[in-house]
Amino acid sequence: MTIATDTRIVFEEALTAFGAAVLREVGVPVHEAQAIVENLVQADLRDVESHGFVRLPIYVQRLAAKAINPCPDIRVVRETPTSAVVDGDNGMGQLVGIRAMQIAIDKAQQNGGMCVFVSVRNSNHYGAAASFAQMACRHDMIGFSYTIGGINHMVPWGGAEARLGNNPFAVAIPAGTEHPVVLDMACSVAARGKIIVAAKEGTPIPPDWAVGPDGKPTTDAVEALKGFVQPVGGPKGYSLTLVIGLLSSMLSGAAFGSEVTHMYDDIERPQNIGHLFGVLPIHLFEDVDVFRRRMDKAIGEMRNARRAPGVERIYLPGEREEHSFAHRRAHGIPIGIGVLAELNELGAQYGLKLESIERPLT
Amino acid sequence: MTIATDTRIVFEEALTAFGAAVLREVGVPVHEAQAIVENLVQADLRDVESHGFVRLPIYVQRLAAKAINPCPDIRVVRETPTSAVVDGDNGMGQLVGIRAMQIAIDKAQQNGGMCVFVSVRNSNHYGAAASFAQMACRHDMIGFSYTIGGINHMVPWGGAEARLGNNPFAVAIPAGTEHPVVLDMACSVAARGKIIVAAKEGTPIPPDWAVGPDGKPTTDAVEALKGFVQPVGGPKGYSLTLVIGLLSSMLSGAAFGSEVTHMYDDIERPQNIGHLFGVLPIHLFEDVDVFRRRMDKAIGEMRNARRAPGVERIYLPGEREEHSFAHRRAHGIPIGIGVLAELNELGAQYGLKLESIERPLT
Repeated sequence: MTIATDTRIVFEEALTAFGAAVLREVGVPVHEAQAIVENLVQADLRDVESHGFVRLPIYVQRLAAKAINPCPDIRVVRETPTSAVVDGDNGMGQLVGIRAMQIAIDKAQQNGGMCVFVSVRNSNHYGAAASFAQMACRHDMIGFSYTIGGINHMVPWGGAEARLGNNPFAVAIPAGTEHPVVLDMACSVAARGKIIVAAKEGTPIPPDWAVGPDGKPTTDAVEALKGFVQPVGGPKGYSLTLVIGLLSSMLSGAAFGSEVTHMYDDIERPQNIGHLFGVLPIHLFEDVDVFRRRMDKAIGEMRNARRAPGVERIYLPGEREEHSFAHRRAHGIPIGIGVLAELNELGAQYGLKLESIERPLT
Repeated sequence: MTIATDTRIVFEEALTAFGAAVLREVGVPVHEAQAIVENLVQADLRDVESHGFVRLPIYVQRLAAKAINPCPDIRVVRETPTSAVVDGDNGMGQLVGIRAMQIAIDKAQQNGGMCVFVSVRNSNHYGAAASFAQMACRHDMIGFSYTIGGINHMVPWGGAEARLGNNPFAVAIPAGTEHPVVLDMACSVAARGKIIVAAKEGTPIPPDWAVGPDGKPTTDAVEALKGFVQPVGGPKGYSLTLVIGLLSSMLSGAAFGSEVTHMYDDIERPQNIGHLFGVLPIHLFEDVDVFRRRMDKAIGEMRNARRAPGVERIYLPGEREEHSFAHRRAHGIPIGIGVLAELNELGAQYGLKLESIERPLT
């Protein structure tokens, strides 16, 4: 969701070229740089800007400091036909995530079809959880994607000390003629990335997004970044973020709780971020054509439900993002001038400039 | 959570004997009646009263009307080493759920260990989602349990028409010396079962639990039951309940959306409720001893976090229920007098009485 009001327009091609060139400068090989940047551009195209180019500066800072390995040797360290443990060798999370999900998909296609889960350690912040879950849909599989966040900024319910990340997970379910249903949520009322964007742009945040370090609700995004984000549904959100964190770390030896360093404040040490990916091939359970038709019917029933007064359209999870994707490919991506300035400051170090135009998004 | 304030005390043994005898009267075989009642008693012992004996009257009504099959032939209709589809033959959901989860666990122990998912159709309301997920923990596996609710009383976000159940899911993760971490949540701010209890007891509900049929928030539990329950986090809760519903129905041919009949209002037709169960054997990913030690450490870090002012103890998901379980086994289960009257009215049809004592819970 675009929060910044003062934006300029950047096109996909310019963003891709700029991002890849910057990553090349800090030692990321050309093929890998391309894969990472495509993942980030997808997030910005899909209006998931909290996991797009807003993160490039910190990624580059960590890569330059060798707190992220630009040339990782990503490898399987334990495996069976239905499982694998992947060591990301401290590579970029997007890269490790794509590789691990591909391993899950490849295994799921063997032996007549398998339910497969792949756990990951020694990875980093992987961006949009949905991007990996969605990979499964192209192979007629349901995809699951869990990760532990790169900063502890949630408290156990009743606590006053950050011991949990705002851990996200995604589930992607393919359909027929409809887009897949894609759930991608973290456990806070709002993503911390949105607070980062607001802080960069100097815009206020709603009072239920976060508490400051004093434990009191705040509309000041800068104060909120020093405090804790609030979980959805109180103890439900706490329980959910805890379980996502455990699933993402306990099956691979990745960091949890006090072992999680701060992605932004500690750029000395590797983070040992963990993920868990899963795939369920549909044909193991149901004829794929029947599944697709029933999914389309289910989607239609949601969209065509009687609407509350003032509501123009009912959306399916992931549908707004698909609409944004199509629109932004054609009309460009609005990026806040604060984020843009930071990207160009980053590029200037390497003699690179991100071209943008001053045009309202139509 | 016990909502009713005017309660009497019933002991586990009395509840078990009463429930089993009632189920026998409507044609449930002795072994199956015992298994179902144990599941319900567990819920009441664990203070998950919304999925305990409060549901016995509707179960019995449906069984007596043959809308639930008292003697189902539960069978596997499709299977591979990592998957199965179970047809519950319209049996009681608790029975079908236990059988299906056991199939998952059995398969997961074959071939050196497998990640297994089992989908279910032609089942019924299965009670507490956690009870099935927890079965996996006893075998050093992580357990997943999803179901679609037996009543559509949630709207797609922006809608004014109930097309979704308040679908619950559970994840249970074993630990070492600590109790397993057990997440069990539905997607509404509060379980509809709690509104049912409040309606039976004539107590008001908080204003954010539900809207009435007019779409406006209400504190009248009876009005709330005619309207819609509200999702946690708005669109997040909607997305989550939708995805849980799809996972529970699309992989088996179970009912979804308009296909879901009303568990309480339509006692003529079978419901074709669906579930999805999953198990991940820990040893496929991590040495079990290492996993257990790390889980205990993680649990300790939550419990021992600095507390907010006025908070006496930080709980792990499932921990309050464990405490309740131990306490209620020793001191009995408080049951609201409204629920108790309904149970005794039910029993009276078969010459059965549920013994209770008038004693405050200590």
